[in-house]
Amino acid sequence: MTPREVIQKKRDGGVLTRDEIASFIRGYMTSQIPDYQLSAWLMAVYFSGMTLEETLTLTREMRDSGAVLDHSSISGRKIDKHSTGGVGDKTSMLVAPIAAACGVTVPMITGRALGHTGGTLDKLESIPGFNAKPSPEKIVEMLRTTGAVIMGQTEDLAPADRRIYALRDVTATIESIPLITASILSKKLAAGTDGLVMDVKTGRGAFMPTLKMARALARSLVDVCRAMKTKIVVVITDMEQPLGRAIGNALEIRECIEFLDGKTPKDLETVSITLAAQMIRLAGKARSIEQASKLAYESVSSGKAGIRFREIIRAQGGDQRVIDDPGILPKAAHVQEFRSPASGFVTRCDAKLLGLASNALGAGRNRMDDIIDPAVGLYLEKKLGDRVARDDVLCQIHWNDGDRQSNALPLIKQAFEIKARPERSRPLIHGALEG
Amino acid sequence: MTPREVIQKKRDGGVLTRDEIASFIRGYMTSQIPDYQLSAWLMAVYFSGMTLEETLTLTREMRDSGAVLDHSSISGRKIDKHSTGGVGDKTSMLVAPIAAACGVTVPMITGRALGHTGGTLDKLESIPGFNAKPSPEKIVEMLRTTGAVIMGQTEDLAPADRRIYALRDVTATIESIPLITASILSKKLAAGTDGLVMDVKTGRGAFMPTLKMARALARSLVDVCRAMKTKIVVVITDMEQPLGRAIGNALEIRECIEFLDGKTPKDLETVSITLAAQMIRLAGKARSIEQASKLAYESVSSGKAGIRFREIIRAQGGDQRVIDDPGILPKAAHVQEFRSPASGFVTRCDAKLLGLASNALGAGRNRMDDIIDPAVGLYLEKKLGDRVARDDVLCQIHWNDGDRQSNALPLIKQAFEIKARPERSRPLIHGALEG
Repeated sequence: MTPREVIQKKRDGGVLTRDEIASFIRGYMTSQIPDYQLSAWLMAVYFSGMTLEETLTLTREMRDSGAVLDHSSISGRKIDKHSTGGVGDKTSMLVAPIAAACGVTVPMITGRALGHTGGTLDKLESIPGFNAKPSPEKIVEMLRTTGAVIMGQTEDLAPADRRIYALRDVTATIESIPLITASILSKKLAAGTDGLVMDVKTGRGAFMPTLKMARALARSLVDVCRAMKTKIVVVITDMEQPLGRAIGNALEIRECIEFLDGKTPKDLETVSITLAAQMIRLAGKARSIEQASKLAYESVSSGKAGIRFREIIRAQGGDQRVIDDPGILPKAAHVQEFRSPASGFVTRCDAKLLGLASNALGAGRNRMDDIIDPAVGLYLEKKLGDRVARDDVLCQIHWNDGDRQSNALPLIKQAFEIKARPERSRPLIHGALEG
Repeated sequence: MTPREVIQKKRDGGVLTRDEIASFIRGYMTSQIPDYQLSAWLMAVYFSGMTLEETLTLTREMRDSGAVLDHSSISGRKIDKHSTGGVGDKTSMLVAPIAAACGVTVPMITGRALGHTGGTLDKLESIPGFNAKPSPEKIVEMLRTTGAVIMGQTEDLAPADRRIYALRDVTATIESIPLITASILSKKLAAGTDGLVMDVKTGRGAFMPTLKMARALARSLVDVCRAMKTKIVVVITDMEQPLGRAIGNALEIRECIEFLDGKTPKDLETVSITLAAQMIRLAGKARSIEQASKLAYESVSSGKAGIRFREIIRAQGGDQRVIDDPGILPKAAHVQEFRSPASGFVTRCDAKLLGLASNALGAGRNRMDDIIDPAVGLYLEKKLGDRVARDDVLCQIHWNDGDRQSNALPLIKQAFEIKARPERSRPLIHGALEG
């Protein structure tokens, strides 16, 4: 079958064979199939979908396009956690030390800011000296001693995913459940994970805005992992408003330090403990989710998780003094209060708009080569359902550049809505699925 | 709007503005938008469709991507005829001299073999010396004297169509009604046509296999032409079996010569006269379609159309002796009879398979750089509904290369079906639509 025929078959709703998918992906990686045929195929997949069997083949092909790591020399189950991306979502930096403190081995592979969402690597790099690319020897050493490492995807893991993702990003073919499934799982499976806890976000600030799409993605992830004999738990969590209070790189690191020090915004705590508990249970360190949650809570309250966080930062070259003195993190020149135009209740605190506003201030990238300003961002004083009086501070704007600040302001204004009556609150955890 | 956003808007079923389409096409032609974004957009258009307004804008942009000819210095209405492509379809070479003999000015732009279908230019080039690219001065001279010219599309007419068509061909995005509409009409409008007679084929051998698709394309062509204030008649004709008896380049020229000499396979006559009559009427050379048909018939029976055909060939450098002695056309080394395996009635004479068989013999191209063998092809002795006895000749196979002949044979076998009872015959003309 020619590449054109493979595209046409998928366009017409056909089910591609293993060979057809394999030769298409391999042909792309060896430059026999050009970008323009892959992008047409990706759009055909967007519309026609893929069966489980096709998604499985695509995932395998993408996994096998590069190195596949083997961590079997390190004892215990290696559990990673991944999120579909959110605003103010700093749970990766929390669950890694919490789970490690409970005996889980966490080889966490994480990413950079994308669109309106933040990236764990960018956040950690606001800590002076932090190295997101530890050497292979360092990774093994950290997994054996600290129990956790938080690192970027290396060039040799699932290179097909990196190339295909870059193409999807510019051809409006991101939002496809089989393509998202293969993208996430090919990387995770190549990294030698024994189990995965997935946080699928839903709501205004999520890439899957509707609960229906989030559930379909959860189902697809579970089905592929089951066929690949890899343990997975998918938790669907809310991303209608930002998670926690801080949005922006150094601001989020500070919030993590405060969290591990006992100051816990409720929503951030609920999501972090839920995810960490699933990791603990998947690793076999607890018999039930209740017991796992208890262990997770205790690791925070006892200070053990905080110690692990310090160890991760130190082992990866970061300045561990930030734990005791977050004041050494980059700070914006200006902090401005954004006040409520009316009295009432917060009925909108739009995660997407606030993410875009934070980006506009310089916390994210519009192009891959944009340089991030680690200091800027937002700190929410009020969130959904909160009662406010006119002129109460809704959020603090941390900014460095006047032009950027004026670009961000209208987005912030639009993000908030104050009404006389509160609206029904959304659940924070929409459900979980296990495979 | 970024190119990605334009793709996404179309993907999500949005209606693109004039500016969005214009900047997309212009961006592509200036290499600011790469092939991979255009191909994703084309696939999104394939699935989401386009409104009349969008199709109109796309047509205009593609027309205006190059030169737009002005034939107003030549008196009379300039009428072209175009077909969506068929097997054994030699009507272009017939209607040009017929219409010209009836006083119509015919600046006919035609193409090459594509897929399983033949190309008028390739057929004409089997006449020794024939030049498909006359100079601009020659074109004007021929339109003034002979009244017709049959030529290939020049590089400067609708270059956007040429580039986009090449990309559609390899990305399985040909079969889209708005894209086909814009492709056909951008060229025709750039060529300065006052009116167009379109032959939309339907059936096994057509690019629009179902009547429903053919009707939708007809509607789209008429709507866009009406908005562009260009006269058009669309005739939907049958392409279940090949038109006439000859398939293959020199064989089809010979059939044309015989046709103009009075030997007329009925189906070829019906379609040719129907199309020519519409051209005559569009040009204002007849008051009614009945009168136009009568003129068309008379131009053949009086020999006037034959004289025009000779003039066209001579003016374009071809050896006019072929008219008197078709024996000087290229001839295959072998002519083999393909016989009926049973007695009964021909219930299948598959245009697509016979087109593919003719291609396999060397009459068409699989790649753009394949060289055509002008001599090879098929000559049908029996067609749909004909009564046959076992071992009657179904068709003659004209071949030069043994390997090619053995590739073609199974296709020919599969193309024919003989049953004890005849099946209901299909109409040859499925309808007409005028704008």
